[in-house]
Amino acid sequence: MPVTRREFLATAGLSAAALATGASSSQTPQVDGGVLRTRIESLSIFGRPTNGTFADGVSRVAYSDADVAGRKYVIDLMRAAGLEPRIDPAGNIFAKRAGSEPLLPPILFGSHIDSVPSGGNFDGDLGSLGALGVIEALDRAKAATRHPLEIVVWSAEEGVAFGRGLAASRIVAGDVKPADMDAVWNGMTRADCVRKIGGNPARIMDAVRPKGAHHAYLELHIEQGGTLERDKISIGVVEGIVSIQRYTAIVTGFGNHAGTTPMAERQDALIAASQLTLAVREAINAKPGRQVGTVGQLNVEPNAPNVIPGVVRMTIELRDLSMDKLNGILADVRQRASAIAANTKTKIEINELSTNPPALATEDVQRAIERASKSLGLSNRRQPSGAGHDAQMMAQLGPMGMIFVPSVAGISHSPRELTKWEDCANGANVLLAAVLEMDKA
Amino acid sequence: MPVTRREFLATAGLSAAALATGASSSQTPQVDGGVLRTRIESLSIFGRPTNGTFADGVSRVAYSDADVAGRKYVIDLMRAAGLEPRIDPAGNIFAKRAGSEPLLPPILFGSHIDSVPSGGNFDGDLGSLGALGVIEALDRAKAATRHPLEIVVWSAEEGVAFGRGLAASRIVAGDVKPADMDAVWNGMTRADCVRKIGGNPARIMDAVRPKGAHHAYLELHIEQGGTLERDKISIGVVEGIVSIQRYTAIVTGFGNHAGTTPMAERQDALIAASQLTLAVREAINAKPGRQVGTVGQLNVEPNAPNVIPGVVRMTIELRDLSMDKLNGILADVRQRASAIAANTKTKIEINELSTNPPALATEDVQRAIERASKSLGLSNRRQPSGAGHDAQMMAQLGPMGMIFVPSVAGISHSPRELTKWEDCANGANVLLAAVLEMDKA
Repeated sequence: MPVTRREFLATAGLSAAALATGASSSQTPQVDGGVLRTRIESLSIFGRPTNGTFADGVSRVAYSDADVAGRKYVIDLMRAAGLEPRIDPAGNIFAKRAGSEPLLPPILFGSHIDSVPSGGNFDGDLGSLGALGVIEALDRAKAATRHPLEIVVWSAEEGVAFGRGLAASRIVAGDVKPADMDAVWNGMTRADCVRKIGGNPARIMDAVRPKGAHHAYLELHIEQGGTLERDKISIGVVEGIVSIQRYTAIVTGFGNHAGTTPMAERQDALIAASQLTLAVREAINAKPGRQVGTVGQLNVEPNAPNVIPGVVRMTIELRDLSMDKLNGILADVRQRASAIAANTKTKIEINELSTNPPALATEDVQRAIERASKSLGLSNRRQPSGAGHDAQMMAQLGPMGMIFVPSVAGISHSPRELTKWEDCANGANVLLAAVLEMDKA
Repeated sequence: MPVTRREFLATAGLSAAALATGASSSQTPQVDGGVLRTRIESLSIFGRPTNGTFADGVSRVAYSDADVAGRKYVIDLMRAAGLEPRIDPAGNIFAKRAGSEPLLPPILFGSHIDSVPSGGNFDGDLGSLGALGVIEALDRAKAATRHPLEIVVWSAEEGVAFGRGLAASRIVAGDVKPADMDAVWNGMTRADCVRKIGGNPARIMDAVRPKGAHHAYLELHIEQGGTLERDKISIGVVEGIVSIQRYTAIVTGFGNHAGTTPMAERQDALIAASQLTLAVREAINAKPGRQVGTVGQLNVEPNAPNVIPGVVRMTIELRDLSMDKLNGILADVRQRASAIAANTKTKIEINELSTNPPALATEDVQRAIERASKSLGLSNRRQPSGAGHDAQMMAQLGPMGMIFVPSVAGISHSPRELTKWEDCANGANVLLAAVLEMDKA
């Protein structure tokens, strides 16, 4: 999908004339909302359904050809902004703007651009392109910071390939061993995948950063829930990110003829899997609180109309800020699964796939975001994040905070995911102001 | 998979020496059980899993390369037996042995050799190869019949491609229109598929046979249920074949983020589909009788661990001898589906995929099979067939009967499908004797 120089300059928010005259402002730095919009729209082309429009969403799964093309688009934007992007061994894209006190650790901010299959155009993209907009705003205003600023586009945040347990930000946080590169997905090893996006699996351990590597990590993201829009709040100040626990359940019954096997003699894996799907919901709803649980993936074998299902493989995902609560819910699910297995004459095996511990945002960073919002006259409130983010990993290395903007109707991981352009611009400007707030400390 | 001439003669049950001397018996005709076994084992090679054995079953789905290879093996066996097999426009294989009264309609018998994915080596294969064994037994005994004898290997009985509503025996029974050849499966039209196996889609209407085309249709088949083995009965005399009704249910919810969407606000298509799967079983079990119902196929979209399922497509299959009972059960399922849709904020659409009416075996043919069993000293009893068979279609054209032999543990449509070799031979000899009984009338 070649982009002409004229198109590129347009989406880069630069005109040939502006470049020639070196036109710039030295006023208060401000992110250009129009440019941000144009770039989000342009990035949406990489992974767009055939003959679709922006509203048809995107399938830019990590390590896909669309992912490679989208990453190239962003790298080119960074270069056009005068940055020197580099790809770490895990495939994450970093770019640095120097600070006036070079020995200080950098303020790191950014997000990801990979998507779930049939996802939306704001999840990750806003925070990634918003971060670049912050750098450009400071450049335009000729504003220096004490700390170096570093922007990042994390790889494989959505965990479609290899599971979220292998998001590339997790590698940077130190949860990696060389053998992780041998995992296989869609016939490719993880090493193949990482190489495909410019990483270096042979030096994967060099991607790990030490504790204290950043002065603060900030991430702008859409809420992905509907509470900010419902309550008419412009900015969410994230208090923490829930723990996400994923399990696989393998239900083994016995595949047999659907016409000749009496109902009472069946060992139907799908009957058991259906009961287990409902049991997960019951276990979640049995306790008060904001915890959620989902069976999102379910595959039947042999999956023919006239054969009683012999095996069902399914995922169980649980989320809450409290690990204790999640452990209790899992125990409840396991107990219900045992009863279901006994009643349906099947075997149910539940195994952990990945666990992210909850991550609390740093009080200082939350206050910086609140001050930033206030300086821009934007309403704000604190709230937890039900979705996982790369910020969760960065919290292990240093202070962390996140900025949420409203999602229309709370829809996310869907082509209908939408955030108003005004809210996108507001979020990017709060990110900019919060970076400057954190630079003071 | 080339077969040497020596191997071919061996599996054909012929030795070069026997051919040279023309050795034969003129005693009571009897099917050679050893040859029958060797052929069932040889046919199992076509569609066998890589590095598998006979016990690993077979995937010889209609129109696959394995199906083409298996058909060639059987056609070659027919030719070696002195027959002149021909393929009708629908892809069915027919071969005739002349009768002493050529104007009489033929006695037709046979079965199919296509399988479900990961199926067994007896379903269809026994009746197809047993039919050839009957012809050879008569030839060896130099026994003439009044009626011409015609053997058949039906195509696409299992309904994996295009659904069972498009089994090739259904075409012979007259349920076909030229546009049926335009259906698409796995990127091939039905016309392509039929051509692939030697049929002629342009002349598909010529495959239709008139009522009265056969004097009787007989089919030897494994029971596929466990009742004959459990009750130590050698031969099942089929009273009739149940109606098989297939439906698709499309459950439409709303795909959304699994972390940020509160439980109470979800429109989870898999929750609704799980309830519907259980509701089908409840509707079946709500009435006394031998009816069965199965959700065998279920596909989730987008099928990712962290996305609430937006759409589920599933099949519902119902079987019983009574159409009235099935209509009542379907109405019950529809009513339960409406309640589920309302409770889960989803939409459920149930559409008919195919319906086979029940087919009763002819009293005369049942009595002929009983006499045949008795003449061989084999215990027998009448029973319905819970599985569908090509015999169901042939019942529309003339008298029909079926012979069942025991399935070990009632397992079918599975690699573990098994019938003892002795029971295979018994079944083929009852088929032979029943053909001769029917030849008297």
